[in-house]
Amino acid sequence: MARLALDAMGGDHAPAAPIAAALLAVQELDASHTIQLVGRESVIREQLTAQLAAAPAILVEAATRFEIVDAPDVIEMTDKPSVAIRGKPKSSMAVGIRLQSEGNSDAFISAGNTGAQMAASTFILRLHEGLSRPAIGTIFPTAKQPVVVLDSGANVDCSAAELVQFARLGHVYARDILGRENPAVGLLSIGEEPEKGNLAVKEAHQLLVDAGLNFIGNIEGRDIPVGACDRGPIDVVVCDGFTGNVLLKFYESVAPVLFGMMMKAGVTKAQLGTIAHQLDYAKYGGAPLLGLKGVSIICHGKSSPEAIKNGIFAGLRAVESRMSQHIGEQLAK
Amino acid sequence: MARLALDAMGGDHAPAAPIAAALLAVQELDASHTIQLVGRESVIREQLTAQLAAAPAILVEAATRFEIVDAPDVIEMTDKPSVAIRGKPKSSMAVGIRLQSEGNSDAFISAGNTGAQMAASTFILRLHEGLSRPAIGTIFPTAKQPVVVLDSGANVDCSAAELVQFARLGHVYARDILGRENPAVGLLSIGEEPEKGNLAVKEAHQLLVDAGLNFIGNIEGRDIPVGACDRGPIDVVVCDGFTGNVLLKFYESVAPVLFGMMMKAGVTKAQLGTIAHQLDYAKYGGAPLLGLKGVSIICHGKSSPEAIKNGIFAGLRAVESRMSQHIGEQLAK
Repeated sequence: MARLALDAMGGDHAPAAPIAAALLAVQELDASHTIQLVGRESVIREQLTAQLAAAPAILVEAATRFEIVDAPDVIEMTDKPSVAIRGKPKSSMAVGIRLQSEGNSDAFISAGNTGAQMAASTFILRLHEGLSRPAIGTIFPTAKQPVVVLDSGANVDCSAAELVQFARLGHVYARDILGRENPAVGLLSIGEEPEKGNLAVKEAHQLLVDAGLNFIGNIEGRDIPVGACDRGPIDVVVCDGFTGNVLLKFYESVAPVLFGMMMKAGVTKAQLGTIAHQLDYAKYGGAPLLGLKGVSIICHGKSSPEAIKNGIFAGLRAVESRMSQHIGEQLAK
Repeated sequence: MARLALDAMGGDHAPAAPIAAALLAVQELDASHTIQLVGRESVIREQLTAQLAAAPAILVEAATRFEIVDAPDVIEMTDKPSVAIRGKPKSSMAVGIRLQSEGNSDAFISAGNTGAQMAASTFILRLHEGLSRPAIGTIFPTAKQPVVVLDSGANVDCSAAELVQFARLGHVYARDILGRENPAVGLLSIGEEPEKGNLAVKEAHQLLVDAGLNFIGNIEGRDIPVGACDRGPIDVVVCDGFTGNVLLKFYESVAPVLFGMMMKAGVTKAQLGTIAHQLDYAKYGGAPLLGLKGVSIICHGKSSPEAIKNGIFAGLRAVESRMSQHIGEQLAK
């Protein structure tokens, strides 16, 4: 019985992509759940009508279960983060997130302006005790199981204590969302020895030894694509948001570059399709903003309807697993 | 007329790989240059005899041009860096580098213990004014031209002033070794706007605007595999040694992982060979320790003879282009 608020105005392909995502999701979702479409009501109705024109009756019927929540302001991808709080208080972001703080929704999902979503989520939902900013946990496909890398961009200058918080957030994420029983947490460094790393990492290593987590020690850049180090599989990669963001964008870019080389070497599209599917970020859906007293899921601005649909399901899993509550308990340890 | 000192005892496959590398190099090198083989004389002679047993007469003749410099101590890959200076003063590293400070050699090349090589090079050759440590510039293959990424591991906690030094070192490297006329220098960050980044990067951005280099602004992780950003091609990527080291190891690991996926998808070895060649680190040879008053080339411990041979030629290019002198001049600007 989750109520999932979807930002109908957010993303490079809004409103078409979020509405299409909602129509994909409603076909898979148990009827006890509700999708709340947040945005300009006239735009949403028009888009829904257009997309449902050629749809089978069963989908037209399912779409009547959408709840439409009017939000007249629209946050542009180029707006500064603060606009979400002060400049446009009736935006789909502010309204959609406020539904949660008012007890009328359980999760918010958006492919819109990430900075604005982070600011509005933090301001309206607030953070668990001891955190100064939410962290972004991103899923990296590997040769084995996907791993969650955090922080991947929200916190650039990090103290050792913040790295330990990321480890706690990642532990809960990997358990609640990815279903890993006792998540293996690795600290990203430049050597596996505890004395290797920058100042924050070296101090964090010592703190993590006693943090009550399944800390497997330092891991290196080479271990991430493999999904394992010589001490076993990895579930969580802890790093500052500068390193995480650089790595994330590097990874997103290196596969297409290699694919381009392969096409020149005569590899067929069918062969590439298999690999591209394994590396497809879309199937992992959105990234939760971790540390909030509530659920706010970030989808990539370029998200396809399929990717946003997976973001909706990521929101559902966060609600059903009570991830935010577990994070609060974990941080209090 | 360069004298190139090769560490015959350094690397996972020493002495076989360095000796084989010397035999490859001597066939291509102009006879005016000398290769100095530094290590245990008996081991070097034995290895040379074995490798030359089945060699053509012309190679046996060329090998007589080697100069053998005896160095009885051997630095192990697991030795601490300080051992190169205090513990084993007659190691192939200490002896080989000292040849330069005594005016009897022009470059040192090793696939041995990197930390020990850095310590011995810094201690014996000394750094140009204003530097506290040498930087390691690593070549990353891209979809276009290779780029040099620095620092890639020697300096983990970096100030803005150090990042600017890396930009200067990278500028000279790209011009003297890679032959780029007016190297485009990018500062690695998490967004192209000058206000994006961690504290050191934001300050470095402002300093680089007035540094008299061809500074193209911030670049992002996604631009590196492409070899370009939306402002054009990139020659030099400036980052702290933590980020650079993580990226380097990630990049070295991601290609084999993708190749494994491709083999499963039915891509042939012949097709992969073409791509692997484009990505082959070996052909770029060793990485110079930048900032030294002299030439010290680091090769990967796992280097093949071909890779070490390319390291020898990287040393030659550094000598012939007068890279170290140019770095001194650039740092004084």
